[in-house]
Amino acid sequence: MEYIKNRRSIRKYKCEDVSTELLNELLETAARAQTMGNLQLYSVIVTRDESMKEHLSPTHFNQPMVKGAPVVLTFCADFNRTTQWCLNRQADPGYDNFLSFMNAASDALLLCQNFCNLAEEKGLGICYLGTTIYNAGKIIDVLKLPRLVVPVATITLGWPDECPPQTDRLPLKSFIHEETYQDYTLADIDCYYSPKEALPENQHFVEINNKQTLAQIFTDIRYTRQANEAMSVALLEVLKRQGFIE
Amino acid sequence: MEYIKNRRSIRKYKCEDVSTELLNELLETAARAQTMGNLQLYSVIVTRDESMKEHLSPTHFNQPMVKGAPVVLTFCADFNRTTQWCLNRQADPGYDNFLSFMNAASDALLLCQNFCNLAEEKGLGICYLGTTIYNAGKIIDVLKLPRLVVPVATITLGWPDECPPQTDRLPLKSFIHEETYQDYTLADIDCYYSPKEALPENQHFVEINNKQTLAQIFTDIRYTRQANEAMSVALLEVLKRQGFIE
Repeated sequence: MEYIKNRRSIRKYKCEDVSTELLNELLETAARAQTMGNLQLYSVIVTRDESMKEHLSPTHFNQPMVKGAPVVLTFCADFNRTTQWCLNRQADPGYDNFLSFMNAASDALLLCQNFCNLAEEKGLGICYLGTTIYNAGKIIDVLKLPRLVVPVATITLGWPDECPPQTDRLPLKSFIHEETYQDYTLADIDCYYSPKEALPENQHFVEINNKQTLAQIFTDIRYTRQANEAMSVALLEVLKRQGFIE
Repeated sequence: MEYIKNRRSIRKYKCEDVSTELLNELLETAARAQTMGNLQLYSVIVTRDESMKEHLSPTHFNQPMVKGAPVVLTFCADFNRTTQWCLNRQADPGYDNFLSFMNAASDALLLCQNFCNLAEEKGLGICYLGTTIYNAGKIIDVLKLPRLVVPVATITLGWPDECPPQTDRLPLKSFIHEETYQDYTLADIDCYYSPKEALPENQHFVEINNKQTLAQIFTDIRYTRQANEAMSVALLEVLKRQGFIE
């Protein structure tokens, strides 16, 4: 529990490699995660090759961790392998639909988090790249993912070469609800978000970007409606191309 | 690492309760999981009330764990709280789209797996109910989830009153790919799935269901095309109703 309490994302890694033996042990143990019908609807693509990192880097908006980490792992929702199994066993697979995508994406994300816990327990540092679903189509091209395989998460992995301060979290009561969902009043919002808004680094962000509020940093700069809508279209197009929606 | 290696889903629980104090400690620690832009795009609904469990039970196909566990947790993708924050801070939120749903679903699933690891480390038993996205619309009604909130995972939680055998897993090499995806040959499929097919309990399933192969158990009985396609339509309808797609 202590290592999870003290966790922080690591973006700078030592030159030291992560051995195949250790990586395999962690992935094998991570696969104890719960999975739909014990089908393990995922694949993990391991990137160590420098030229492959060069190709992946722009798909993650050139975040320096991709080229800076010894290992990059791309966790994919995968109904291809199960479908191949069915086709070779006189069974008619019906997994080219949205529900099956969500089942496989869930399996892949649970595996991913299980892996992260195990890796951090061993002293490794990881950074989760949320950019994976933004540019899924390009990642599919680079990693040569077939039909019924879609990348849903990327982890950069290595031995930590930094110890950044821990980021804040909202208070527990802001995200738990007893029995039914209690919608938020303005007073609730003020109570839950004021500590975050008062952090010097967040006030600094607001100031240097000439914004009035921290929320505007998110809506106007980091996660804009325009970008979200364009990437939604692209992601649905990817699901179509990979056979998960019509 | 050892408790993950030895994990198994627990479906029978002792009468003993799980204290609010322990549950809160676990949820608070679980929230150290990585999250998009540190926005924590999730909510957790805690069900302890017997009548609420009665209402939830059919949404999970009356699996006995729902009424048998002291605590049921529903993990939800939640862009409602963040949207309320933006609206109260002169910011224009653009999170009523599919990409935002996937971002929030990812956050909720990572939180869920982090929670499971912490709970199992404390000796608690959990069972992951994949049925959540099958009947999301009914769960939304029971838990009174507002727009931009969708349930993505449910956990039943309690002190174990059984120690079932561990289930099998595919060999590691079946789901990792070096650098690029190597599609499966028939020989690969045979190699990876034969041990599973040879298990006495799986051979028994095939026999009592009058099937020829284990894969047919999945395609013809457990996860049929017809059910998957109907539930895909229902899930997309839920995303529309909750404001995540048009």
